[in-house]
Amino acid sequence: MRLIHNIGELFIPDVTTAPVVNDVPLSSLRDAWLLIEEGAIEDFGTGSVPVSERDAIDAQGGAVVPGLVDSHSHLVFAGTREDEFVLRSSGKSYLEIAKAGGGIKRTVAAVRAASLDELVDLALPRLARMLANGVTLEIKSGYGLTIEAEIKMLQTVQRLRDLQPIELVATYLGAHTLPPEYRSNRSAYVDLVMSDELMGRVAEEGLAEFCDVFCEETAFTLEECRRVLEKGKDYGLASKIHADQITQMGASRLAAEVGAVTAEHLEHIDDSGAKALRDAKVIAGLMPGCSFYLGVPQAPARRILREGIPITIATDYNPGSSMVESLPLVLSIACTQLKLSPSEALIGATLNAAAALRRDSRIGFVAKGMEADLVVLDAPSVDQWLYQVGRNAVRTVLKKGRVVYEKP
Amino acid sequence: MRLIHNIGELFIPDVTTAPVVNDVPLSSLRDAWLLIEEGAIEDFGTGSVPVSERDAIDAQGGAVVPGLVDSHSHLVFAGTREDEFVLRSSGKSYLEIAKAGGGIKRTVAAVRAASLDELVDLALPRLARMLANGVTLEIKSGYGLTIEAEIKMLQTVQRLRDLQPIELVATYLGAHTLPPEYRSNRSAYVDLVMSDELMGRVAEEGLAEFCDVFCEETAFTLEECRRVLEKGKDYGLASKIHADQITQMGASRLAAEVGAVTAEHLEHIDDSGAKALRDAKVIAGLMPGCSFYLGVPQAPARRILREGIPITIATDYNPGSSMVESLPLVLSIACTQLKLSPSEALIGATLNAAAALRRDSRIGFVAKGMEADLVVLDAPSVDQWLYQVGRNAVRTVLKKGRVVYEKP
Repeated sequence: MRLIHNIGELFIPDVTTAPVVNDVPLSSLRDAWLLIEEGAIEDFGTGSVPVSERDAIDAQGGAVVPGLVDSHSHLVFAGTREDEFVLRSSGKSYLEIAKAGGGIKRTVAAVRAASLDELVDLALPRLARMLANGVTLEIKSGYGLTIEAEIKMLQTVQRLRDLQPIELVATYLGAHTLPPEYRSNRSAYVDLVMSDELMGRVAEEGLAEFCDVFCEETAFTLEECRRVLEKGKDYGLASKIHADQITQMGASRLAAEVGAVTAEHLEHIDDSGAKALRDAKVIAGLMPGCSFYLGVPQAPARRILREGIPITIATDYNPGSSMVESLPLVLSIACTQLKLSPSEALIGATLNAAAALRRDSRIGFVAKGMEADLVVLDAPSVDQWLYQVGRNAVRTVLKKGRVVYEKP
Repeated sequence: MRLIHNIGELFIPDVTTAPVVNDVPLSSLRDAWLLIEEGAIEDFGTGSVPVSERDAIDAQGGAVVPGLVDSHSHLVFAGTREDEFVLRSSGKSYLEIAKAGGGIKRTVAAVRAASLDELVDLALPRLARMLANGVTLEIKSGYGLTIEAEIKMLQTVQRLRDLQPIELVATYLGAHTLPPEYRSNRSAYVDLVMSDELMGRVAEEGLAEFCDVFCEETAFTLEECRRVLEKGKDYGLASKIHADQITQMGASRLAAEVGAVTAEHLEHIDDSGAKALRDAKVIAGLMPGCSFYLGVPQAPARRILREGIPITIATDYNPGSSMVESLPLVLSIACTQLKLSPSEALIGATLNAAAALRRDSRIGFVAKGMEADLVVLDAPSVDQWLYQVGRNAVRTVLKKGRVVYEKP
């Protein structure tokens, strides 16, 4: 039994202000306490604490929020691309840089050249830094684009599970971009992505839970994406789509048609796409750090919320278009650029993000019986936390009731 | 004698790419070393190290840059204003919030109510966090707006000098906003700002080096600002101006006319203002974190650079319009939003920022005889450092050759 007491604000979503995936008609508690038993939330409330305070964590008036869930990242990669960051500051666009030989294909080359051990060694310090920001993280493949290299990326995720405390969720993104060697033979590559040797092995060995596709002019067509996702479903992989990021191709409607769990990016979503997501109960994944990073327009978050569509906020951490590993910073970017309130942003990195990873029955919000994934903040409220942009105010992080990070 | 060796990049401005205040025709060195003697830079170079490595700091291939200079902040304040941050996310503008009773005047009330001791206690943890980001910081008064409270703010700065290692530069900003009690008597307040009892005392007691004014529709007119700045010059206070932030009133031209050291903000600078700054050799102070924070358009940085005007990048750290205390984060915002290269941004927080505080003869760039204010980074180059947005990559900070911060 472990107690957290002296909690300034115990964050519980107020569902009257933002669409959420589940019906949790609650709101935050002030001056609260919370009791953990065997890794789960046993009880919580305000007023006098029901047990003695041995082994208690004193929140010192700080807020306590559910452990953050980063539902979209490309954390396993090799090489850096700061030269493209410099080129963009001189006015070059992401597409111009990609067409001039930059972009994803450079990271693909670096990942193919790296061993599994090297990928693990590169990922560990990133995860160590991210631990201060969250305890559940999705990681996509998609920088390999051969049977061997895609499997290597997903095995890297598997290996990382044993080496650090963040819960990792793997997504197979073979359809990330067309590898150079298939430039004149697109359909052969799409066949490879869907093959028993690759997709089949990913599913059989439990290397991923989700199948994702990049539906974009520079990547894969609607029909190619549909084929890959349907085949993924046959293999038991739930669908995610990189949709409407750079151009409007109808990818959100495809997400609805295939019953995807999430459609993500959505900078160029249109009205019919939004209505399709709403009707099919697809979660809208937003990546404000990416648009900020590239200096391009943001997704129309408030329009999406007005449709009643639950949204997630994720880092999209990757070496090309979003070299931003701090989820709290991205939440503050969501407030200033997407015009979300701090609570709306945080719901997108807890409850809704857990649902985007199909874990909302056990993590993502404070309720009896949920796993005790919790963050104690050095700020009295969620509002004051995210108002202080870029300040690391995380004091203690718990995963299943165990302290996995404390600020040095 | 102290050696820093194994330096991946020793940052020295390349003046062919960005206007700088002085003629320093150099550029960065790779695989470098640097020698410190009695708090100053004794020598630096590449290749074999000229001394034995006792008491050496191993940069481990990381970049070394001049100690960061944050040339515009309002760090001394009481109270927080996260409720206004939430209001802005619901679409309210800075001016709407100010007119509804929010804004600077709330911080003024909190500062007036706080004792000098309380202001010191509130400032110390902010400075402790900022130490990882820089070693020279300007702080403005302007939340007091009475003789007693303005003096109290500047005495707070004075007191803070003895309590922590950051070099603090004080600026008198009595003309920040019209205090409520003078609403029907503007000229009496302007007279107070310029009075012997207030401005005279500030100058006599050495409480500030600069006199600043907020030239804006909601604050003070061009003519009021001119009077205050000219009087400041009589008292030996050099001029700074909050110019062209919200509306275009000709404040940049005023900066040129009074011979100001800096004109700052400049989101709405026009062509004639830019030419005036250039001709009068006024430094342009840009605050990209503030525009980002408020979600409003950025200053036209590239247009200003094209005129050949040196620019600075500062946090504008304050509880209302820029609750952003990390200067490296603001430099990354400058890259992504102002389209500055990492080097151009960094020049604005070192060499040019030192000039904005009239300290460029002793700090702000790497040269023999300059004070050894240096930052050792956990990134091999300036480009890779600022490319990793929001990551704290500062490993060691030296002030006058003494280690004043080490990453825990």
